[in-house]
Amino acid sequence: MASSDVRINGDRVSRRLQELSTIGRDPRGGMSRFSFTPAHAQACLLVAGWLREAGLDPAIDGAGNLAGLGPGRGAALCAGSHLDTVPMGGIYDGALGVVGAVECAQALRDAGASLRRPYAALAFADEEGHSFGIGCLTSRALVGELPDEQMRTIRDREGRTLAERAAAWDCPLPHRDPPRLAAYLELHIEQGPRLHAEGLDAAAATAIAGISRTTATFIGQANHGGTTPMAMRRDALWGAATLVLDVRRLALASAGATVATVGKIDVEPGATNVVPGAARVRVEVRSGEDARLARLRADVEAAAHAAARAFGLSVTVDPWDSLPPQPLDDGIRTLALAHAARRGLHAISMPSWAGHDAKILAPHVPAGLIFVPSRDGISHSPAEFTSPAQIAAGVQVLMDTLVAIDAASPAA
Amino acid sequence: MASSDVRINGDRVSRRLQELSTIGRDPRGGMSRFSFTPAHAQACLLVAGWLREAGLDPAIDGAGNLAGLGPGRGAALCAGSHLDTVPMGGIYDGALGVVGAVECAQALRDAGASLRRPYAALAFADEEGHSFGIGCLTSRALVGELPDEQMRTIRDREGRTLAERAAAWDCPLPHRDPPRLAAYLELHIEQGPRLHAEGLDAAAATAIAGISRTTATFIGQANHGGTTPMAMRRDALWGAATLVLDVRRLALASAGATVATVGKIDVEPGATNVVPGAARVRVEVRSGEDARLARLRADVEAAAHAAARAFGLSVTVDPWDSLPPQPLDDGIRTLALAHAARRGLHAISMPSWAGHDAKILAPHVPAGLIFVPSRDGISHSPAEFTSPAQIAAGVQVLMDTLVAIDAASPAA
Repeated sequence: MASSDVRINGDRVSRRLQELSTIGRDPRGGMSRFSFTPAHAQACLLVAGWLREAGLDPAIDGAGNLAGLGPGRGAALCAGSHLDTVPMGGIYDGALGVVGAVECAQALRDAGASLRRPYAALAFADEEGHSFGIGCLTSRALVGELPDEQMRTIRDREGRTLAERAAAWDCPLPHRDPPRLAAYLELHIEQGPRLHAEGLDAAAATAIAGISRTTATFIGQANHGGTTPMAMRRDALWGAATLVLDVRRLALASAGATVATVGKIDVEPGATNVVPGAARVRVEVRSGEDARLARLRADVEAAAHAAARAFGLSVTVDPWDSLPPQPLDDGIRTLALAHAARRGLHAISMPSWAGHDAKILAPHVPAGLIFVPSRDGISHSPAEFTSPAQIAAGVQVLMDTLVAIDAASPAA
Repeated sequence: MASSDVRINGDRVSRRLQELSTIGRDPRGGMSRFSFTPAHAQACLLVAGWLREAGLDPAIDGAGNLAGLGPGRGAALCAGSHLDTVPMGGIYDGALGVVGAVECAQALRDAGASLRRPYAALAFADEEGHSFGIGCLTSRALVGELPDEQMRTIRDREGRTLAERAAAWDCPLPHRDPPRLAAYLELHIEQGPRLHAEGLDAAAATAIAGISRTTATFIGQANHGGTTPMAMRRDALWGAATLVLDVRRLALASAGATVATVGKIDVEPGATNVVPGAARVRVEVRSGEDARLARLRADVEAAAHAAARAFGLSVTVDPWDSLPPQPLDDGIRTLALAHAARRGLHAISMPSWAGHDAKILAPHVPAGLIFVPSRDGISHSPAEFTSPAQIAAGVQVLMDTLVAIDAASPAA
C-alpha cells in the first residue's frame, strides 16, 4: 500500500483520548495533570505502551519529555504535543496532538507502510507553564533554549529546580537524549471559535501570533466628586475609557489581522465619590505579522497620547512584554491544506493566536501546526470539546501531511 | 451702636483658628481630631473659654455637641459647625464655622450690641463620620433623627455605642439639653475650586446637593484575548468605557447644574490576556435640584442600556444610595448675598456639593450656609487653605446675616 493512502483509525484515537483523560482528573472537574507528578508518570507509561504497539521505542529525556522513536538513521520527522494541562483543563489541549502522533505510527504499521525518514512521536512534559511559570518550558529545554545553567536555576512554587524535579520524578521508563529533528508537526485544538463558527474542518497555521503588552498610565488630578465642577476636572478615567474604545476600533480596522484586548484597568484612588487621579490600562495586541503588530502598537500609543491631550491629562506608555510573531513553515502549511482538500475537508490558513510548542521548535526546524475546531471556542476548561469526527479528520490531515513531507524532502 | 454696624475682628478669628489647630495634630501631617477623644475634650475646653469670654454659657449635650447659649428666652438664633476632622485633615473644615460663630457673639459684646433673640454658638461633635461611619452623626442626634434606641445600638470600630462613648468621654464641662433652635447659619470653606478659580469672596448655598449612586454591571463573555476574533467578542469593558464617557457628556450638558463621577470600575476576571466577561461601573450623580437629579439618573440608566445593546452585552442597573437635595432657606440666602454686596464682596448663589450639618438642620428650622474660597479647591488635606482676609470677610457676612435675620423676624 502506498503510504499516501494510509487511513488513520478515528475510533482508536477517540478511545485513547478518553483513556488518557482518566489520568490526572481533578475532583473539582476537568484535568489537572501537571509535569513531574505521579499522574504525569502514569500518562507517560500509558503512552509508552501505545508507542511500543506502534513500533516506536519510548524514552524520557532530561527535561521529562517522552519520545517514541522509530527505526532509521538521521534526523527524525516528528509529530507531537504536550501531556500536561492547566488546572481544571480539558481533555483535548495537548493530549490530542500526542495521541494523534502515536496514531500516525500505528496507522503506518497497520497499513504495512513506512516513511523514508525515521519517525518520532513527542509528548512534551510542560507546555502550560503551571509548575515553573514558564510556557513551553520543556520544548525550550529540548531545543537548548534553556541551557543547563538555567535548568539548574529556575524553581517551581516549592523552590525545586527543573533538574531536581526531573531527577526526583519516579517514571519507570528508560532515559535517552531527545531525537534529532528534521521537521515538527503539531495537531492541536484551535482554542478559539473561528473554525466552529464558520463550519470549517481544520486550519493550518501561518505563524504563531506575536504579542506586545503595554501599560498606559493616565495621570489627572484626584478630587472631590461633588465639589469639583465638571469643566474643571482632570479625570484620568476619561482618558482610560477613550483608549479602551480606541483599542477596539484600531483592532477591528485590521479586518482579522490583529486582535487587541484591555483585560485590566485600575483606577486610583478608586472611591465612588472621588474623581480618579490615575488610571492604568493594560493593552495587549497580537498579530501573526510583525509589521502589523508594530503598527498597531504605535497606533495604540498615539491614541493614548491623543486621549490624554483631549482631557488635560498626562500619560506614560510603557511596553513591558514583547514577543515577535513566529512564522511557521509555508511548505508544510501548503501541503496540509492540499491534503485536507483532497480528503474533502474545508480548511483555511490562519495565525495561531495562542502559543504552542511548535513556536519553540519553528526557529530550529521546519514546523507546522494543524488546528481542529473547538466547540464555542472554549478551552482550558472542562467544557472543552471537539467531536470524534472532527478529531479523526484532523489526525488524517496530520497523517497525510507527514507522508507528504516525507515524500517531498530527501532523507538525510 | 446699631447692631447692623458690628465689625468682627478678623485677627482674633485667625489667631483662634491657629490655636485650635494645635489640638489633635496628626504626627503624619494635618489634623486628626476625632469625636469623644481627649483632643476633642481639649478643643471643647478651649472653645468653652472663648464662649464664656463672649458672654455665652457653654454646655455639652447627650451626643457630645458643645453649645454656648446667650441670655434671653425662646428659641435661639444659632451659628456653628463641627469640631471633628477627617484623618489628616485641614484646620479650616468645621473649625472655621465654630470660631466664626463664637466671634459673632464676641463682636456683638465688644460693640455693646445685642440681638433681640437669644443667640447660640454650636460646635458639633461628629460631622465627618470617622468614628461611627455616619456623616453628621451628632447634628442628627440634636434634631432627634437618631432616637435613643439608635444611639444605643450604633457602634464604633471598637464596638462601643455612641451613648457609651459620650458617657465615658472625659470632658469637664456641664451637661445641658441642646438649645431650641429658631434658625441655623453655618460658615464653611467651599471644599471646591469654584470661588477660588473665579476670584469670588463668598457664596450662599441654594441647597445641599442630592446624591444618587448607581452600579451598572455589564455582562459579556470572558474569553481568550488571543484566540477570540474581535468581531466575535462580547467585551464587558467596551460597555463600561462607553458609559464612563456618556456620564461625562450628560453631566457637562447640564451647564453646572449637576456633576457626575465614575470613581470606581472593576473588571472580571481582570487578566491582561482575557477578554473581560464582566465590568462594574459605580456612577455617582449630584444636583441641588431634585428634578435635575432624577433626570440625570434616568439618562445614565438609559445610556447604560444603550451601551449594552451596542456591544451585545447585558446590563443591570442597581441604584444603591439616594439622598434627595435639601433646599436651604431662600430668605437667609438672599440676606447673606445682600449683606455681602453691602460690604463690597463678590458673592454668588450655588449649591453645596458636599454634605454639612446645615443639611440635617434645614428640615427643622430655616437654615443657611455661607462659603468662603478653598485655595485650589483642596480640602480634607493638610494643604487646605483660606487666607485671613477671606476668612474675615466670611465671618463678617455671617455676622451681618445673623443681625439681619434677627431684625427681620419677630422674637418668639
